[in-house]
Parts: sequence; C-alpha cells; structure tokens
Amino acid sequence: MICDKFFTNVLFCCLVVQCLARLKGFEKLTSIDEAMSTFLKELKLKLLKSVRVPVHLALNRVVAEDIKAENDLPLFDRSTVDGYAVRAKDTFQASQFRPRILRLTGKERVQEKEARLVWTGNPLPHEADAVIMLEHTKKIPDGIEVGISVTPGENVSKRGEDVQKGEIAVKARTRLKPHHVGLLAALTVTHVNVVEKPKIAILSTGSELVDLGRKPKPNQIVDVNRVVLSLMCQELGAESLSLSIAKDDIQEIATKISEGIKKADIVITTGGTSVGQADLVPTAIDQIGAPGVIVHGITMRPGMPTALAVLQGKPVIVLSGNPVAAMVGFEVFARPLILKLLGVENEPRPMLKATLTRRAPSALGRQAFLRVRVFEKDGEFFAEPIRIKGAGILSTMTKANGYVIIPENCEGLEEGETVTVHLFDKMEKA
Amino acid sequence: MICDKFFTNVLFCCLVVQCLARLKGFEKLTSIDEAMSTFLKELKLKLLKSVRVPVHLALNRVVAEDIKAENDLPLFDRSTVDGYAVRAKDTFQASQFRPRILRLTGKERVQEKEARLVWTGNPLPHEADAVIMLEHTKKIPDGIEVGISVTPGENVSKRGEDVQKGEIAVKARTRLKPHHVGLLAALTVTHVNVVEKPKIAILSTGSELVDLGRKPKPNQIVDVNRVVLSLMCQELGAESLSLSIAKDDIQEIATKISEGIKKADIVITTGGTSVGQADLVPTAIDQIGAPGVIVHGITMRPGMPTALAVLQGKPVIVLSGNPVAAMVGFEVFARPLILKLLGVENEPRPMLKATLTRRAPSALGRQAFLRVRVFEKDGEFFAEPIRIKGAGILSTMTKANGYVIIPENCEGLEEGETVTVHLFDKMEKA
Repeated sequence: MICDKFFTNVLFCCLVVQCLARLKGFEKLTSIDEAMSTFLKELKLKLLKSVRVPVHLALNRVVAEDIKAENDLPLFDRSTVDGYAVRAKDTFQASQFRPRILRLTGKERVQEKEARLVWTGNPLPHEADAVIMLEHTKKIPDGIEVGISVTPGENVSKRGEDVQKGEIAVKARTRLKPHHVGLLAALTVTHVNVVEKPKIAILSTGSELVDLGRKPKPNQIVDVNRVVLSLMCQELGAESLSLSIAKDDIQEIATKISEGIKKADIVITTGGTSVGQADLVPTAIDQIGAPGVIVHGITMRPGMPTALAVLQGKPVIVLSGNPVAAMVGFEVFARPLILKLLGVENEPRPMLKATLTRRAPSALGRQAFLRVRVFEKDGEFFAEPIRIKGAGILSTMTKANGYVIIPENCEGLEEGETVTVHLFDKMEKA
Repeated sequence: MICDKFFTNVLFCCLVVQCLARLKGFEKLTSIDEAMSTFLKELKLKLLKSVRVPVHLALNRVVAEDIKAENDLPLFDRSTVDGYAVRAKDTFQASQFRPRILRLTGKERVQEKEARLVWTGNPLPHEADAVIMLEHTKKIPDGIEVGISVTPGENVSKRGEDVQKGEIAVKARTRLKPHHVGLLAALTVTHVNVVEKPKIAILSTGSELVDLGRKPKPNQIVDVNRVVLSLMCQELGAESLSLSIAKDDIQEIATKISEGIKKADIVITTGGTSVGQADLVPTAIDQIGAPGVIVHGITMRPGMPTALAVLQGKPVIVLSGNPVAAMVGFEVFARPLILKLLGVENEPRPMLKATLTRRAPSALGRQAFLRVRVFEKDGEFFAEPIRIKGAGILSTMTKANGYVIIPENCEGLEEGETVTVHLFDKMEKA
C-alpha cells in the first residue's frame, strides 16, 4: 500500500481540513466504522418471530433455536460396507495365503466362527463386532473363506457415533445448507423453526425515474435501484416491499418513508441525498420524527452522501441515487443489519488473497471499494482492477466479481501487491 | 505434501496392484479425471431450451443468449452530481479567492457565463460541458459565485459511456446476479431468455430406507440422500424429480431408472453399488440397455464405488448410499454435468488458500476430499481438518465449510502447509 503512516497522517489531516472547507452540506464526514457504531447504538432492533417450515423447504433459512438430537445417530451399530458381520477375533491372523473359514448364518446372533451377510447400513447382528468387506472373502459351500483380519469395530458405524441423543445437531442461527438438512433428516426431524424473513421497504426518489417496464420519456431514466436492492435482499433471505418512486418532493418522500416504517423492519431509500437544496430525503426524515438523521456523509467512495437515520427505533438507510454507490452502500450498511436481524452475525462474503495485476490509485480520506475481477491461473489467484471510464458506471459491477477495500489513509494499491478480495460473484479459471 | 514423486510412484504402483488383487468386484479403479472424460465422450447431452422470464424474477437463472444493448447507456449526457451545468471554460482560473460569477438560467441552452441548476441524473443542457458541485458554489442574487474550475466532461456521464448501443451488455451463459439485472434494467430490458432448468431424477435404493416424515421401524433408516441431493440440485438452479425409493430388487430399480431416463436430463441413484451381490444398480442399468455402465469404481475417498453409466445418451450417476460419499460424488460428477447442461462451464466454488492447522493423513491411491473448517483470523486464513470418528459421518459435513483435495499420490498434508480450499458454506471470522 502506498501509505507511510506518519506522512499520510499529515496528508490526510490536510485533506480532511480541505474537505470540511468545501463540503458546506456536511458538517463532517464520518468513517464507516464510526457511522455503524453510532447507528447501532440508536437502533432498537426488534427480534424477529420464528416460523415452522418443513426441512426440505428450509434451504438458506436461518434456524431460530438449537436443534437437539432426539435419538442417537446412527440409532444402532451398523455396517458401513457390503460384507460379512463377524466376531473380529475369528479373523485374527487370517491372510490370503492362510484364509480362515467361517460358517454362514442367517440368524440374529453371530456365534463363534460364524458370519452373516450384511449390506451397507444394515444393523450389526448380535455379538458381531466387525464387518469384512465382500471383496476380501470368497464364497465356498456353506461358508466363506476370509483372506484378511479385521479389528473390532472395523467397518462398523457405532450407535451415536455421528450425533448422540441430546447433543446439539444444528446450532441456533445457522443458515441451512443441504448438509445441515441432511443431518436433520437423518435424525428424523421433519420441521424446523426458522427466523421470519426480515421485511425491507425500498423507496426510490427522483422526478426523473420511471418504473422498469414503462418506456422512459426523453430525460427520464429507469429506476434501477429498487430492482437491484430488492434482489440483494432476496439473496440474504429477506423480503423486500416496494414503496415505489417518490418525486423530488419532501412531503411525498416523508409520507412514503412513514409508510415503510409502519410495514417493515428496515427502510432503504435511494437518491435525494447530497447537499444543499437536493438533500430531500434527510430533510423529509427529520420532519417525520426524532432522532431522524444521525449520520450524514461517510468517508467512503462511492457512497459519500450516504446517510443513516432512526425512526421509531427502526433503521432508515439513505443511499445515493447512483446505482453503484447504492449497491456499495447496501453492502456496507444494509447487509450487516439484515444479517443482524436474522441473528447471523458472522457471514462474511467469501474472501481470498490475490495478487493485484495493476496499480489502483485511490483518494486519501476515503475508504474505497475497488471493483476487481478475480481469476485463478495455475493455482494462483489474481485480482484485476476494473477500469473506470466514469463515475457510477454499472458495467464496472458486471465486469467485476469482487471488491477490495482500500483504507482511508492510502493513496492506492501497487501492482503485485497481495490484497484481500470479497467475492460477490463466481470467480473464474483463466 | 508428503509425496516424493519417484518414491510415491513406486509405492503407488504397488498399492494399485494390491488393490486389483483385492477388489474382485472392480476390474480396475479409474481416476476422477479419466472417468469424467470417458463419461463425456459417451454422453449425448441435449441442449436445453430457453424460456422467457421477467428480469426481476431471473436471479440466478442462466442467460440463454448474448443480450445486446438496444440503446446507449446513459442515453444522454447527464450530470453525476447535484450542481450547476456550465461551460467549463467559463470557470478557468476560478479559485476560492478569485471566484467567477455566472448568471443563472432556466433555459435548455447554457450560454456564455451562464449556469443552470441540475440534479444528479439530469440531462446536461445544450452547450454545457461540465457540472460544478453545489458545494463549490455560493448563491448570490441572480447568479452564483464559482470557487473552483472544472474541466470539460467533469461530473458528466457521457452518452454511451457505460454501454454503447449494439455492445453485449450481458454475455450468453451468465448466471444473473443483482448487478447484471441492474444493468439490464438500466437498458430498459424487462424480459430475458434464460436456459430452462435441467431436470434431475433422483432415486434412492435400499430396502432399509423410509421416506422422511415416516417413522422408521427398528432396522430402518430415513432416506437422507434424496433430500440432500435435491437441495444440491436446487442450489445449482436445476429441478429435481423424485423417483422415490427402490427396494434392493434389480427389476424395481431398472423400472425406476427407465422412468427417470424418460422424464429427466440426468438420473442420479444412491445405494446399491459396490461389489459382488450388492451391486444391484449397475446390474439393473446394464439390463436396461447399452452402453450402460462405462466406469465403475473410482480412485476417490469417499465415493470409491461410484459408477457412471449412459442410457439413451443420458447420464446416469450411480452414487454410494453413504450420505457423505453421495454428496462428494455429486460434487465431483453431477455438479459439473448440471453446469454443462446450463452452459455454465466455468463456475468453480469460491476458492482460497489457507494454512492447515494440523496434519491430515490420506491413503495413497485415492484422491481424498478432506473436510475442513476455514476461518479468518487477523487477516489470515486457516483450514482446520474435521476429525473423523468413523466412516460416513454426516456431522463432518455440518462442522466443515469447505474441502481440500488431497491428490492420489500423497500420503497426506502437513500442519502449516498452504492448501487450496473449496468453500461449500460460509467462512467464519474467529
């Protein structure tokens, strides 16, 4: 990183002073961490209820409470192979050249020098303590030749070996993946209590916006943000509610935000936040009630005009109207909050270290979200910064599959530097 | 890795010979790569049809064809900030100490020494070529003071800057994520042609199995595999069809597999594959038709008895009845095939390099899938091998979030070694 600590601290201070002088609209810019911590202190997040769903419909849902095993798994000692259940001691010293001979039985009990055919998953007959794989035996009239010795417990899955009765099989706040559901199914669990989906109300503001599906007139543009943010909510297992589009009108904005606060757990707005006259959303929020806007202006790029507000203890996240800045703002402030509501506080995006393929400059005083394309080549990982032709270019997102955070006190990252990438789409093999 | 090339090659050969001697049921074991390549040669994979869906319902669907931009994006030069549209040359040499004064206009055209108020996203008035941010100006009667100079194009998003008319906005075979849908929405695309969901028929075999939801009698166990594999299909964007449970009966198995071949693009079975008498599924398949089973027995652990078969040009993937082995077999053979049907050939799971926290032994001659728990600590990544108490332990999957591949010619991995982890669940921050 291009950041000598003493030198950049000095530079950084100069820059902040300069910013303060320039940004009449913002009394001060707040760092992401400070903003989030102030936000969390003011919020009164309500615990979500739980709902009961069949396990096979519970993929990606979050378990509301610890799920304890009501039985041992497996419920009985069972064979892990196709073969013959035996008493291990009857096979001692057997070899291909000196095979042991065992009599076949079909009974529930295997007696001395007896063997019983079992398939994978079959319970072990009484007094048998091991299973010899079929391929290590030879069938002879009335019996088998055993060419290998087995130890007690060999090829046997012991009762309770996987999970014991009373043990927690799946912890509360686990997001269910196929393997969790598999374990629950094995324990004969058919239904689980999962956390209700958080409701996220999304409002787009801007007189120039039209709904996707309506043909934009000249000077109009399609409202991209509501579509994107709603899908980002869906990916996290939240339910999005549309508050539609508000014109650049403080009263209309306030009415719709109030509606969102009534219906949803989180309200997200886009557009109408910057400085001076255009700062419609923060103004509308402060008209609705206290404490209203608690942070406005963040030392991040993109997304500097982001604001955070609290109404009736609920979060209102005020994102930029620029779609790229809105996505980054969602990632930084909405994603952790939605996960918090779900109780999943430890769910980072997949991360990896990669080598930067070229220099990426950054502005001091801003935490930058550098979009990169990560790829694997010959077992090594590389991150290629996406070239930006202009601000808010949507195709920088579709060309990227991850982002790298460049800290505030850095002027950029050097070619060849090792960076930590946060993946938001699949990586590629070159 | 504990693998000297010459030495292990010798060891490996000895082992293979030994295996061949032992494994009467398998003429030979095949490596994963060879098995897959033989399989692909025999298959006649049908191209899936495409279906038209609204973009906002297309998350995670795979685009069937290139989507070209029908218009420039943006469609007109527009402001990227709230501010005043100006002719850049009128601001040259302006500074906080020597501000320039510009007259305000409301007209469509900005003339010399004029400025017009614009909000983010507004089209640029004629003859304006830059925008000064509100915070760099001061309102005075009939005009503004400009305390900074701007260059032509500054704070302006040029027509076509993001995507040009005719350019491919989203390539064929892209799996749509929120940012892709955002770009499509911005281009006023409301519907997309996506690849139909591949249909995967899943059959469980085993007389001891009962459907989840039915109480298992003594000696019975719940059919876990159909539940798990169906969810794994769902995660990939495939549709699973249940062929229910077949008893250990060749005729019943053959009937159900034939039904699957009629209805589905891929048939997956679990159980009834090993050696000798228990090898019911391969036997049933070979009764149905040619070429039938083309690979049986793979040098992998778990999942050695996996078989690959072809009927009417369609793949039949014969997985072990052991749930862990079935999941690994799905990962290795079914996942790439489902992606191939979707046309998404480059979608590895998220990968990263991590430091192994302790030694993990492995058997020579088997490619092992070591389950690990990856976590991040102080910016470094670690992979902790999950301790295995016995074979086929389901909780090894729920305790893990990724796997490491240990090659066939290795006796294991050492503590402190750097390994490549494939993530199948979220990573954790310690």
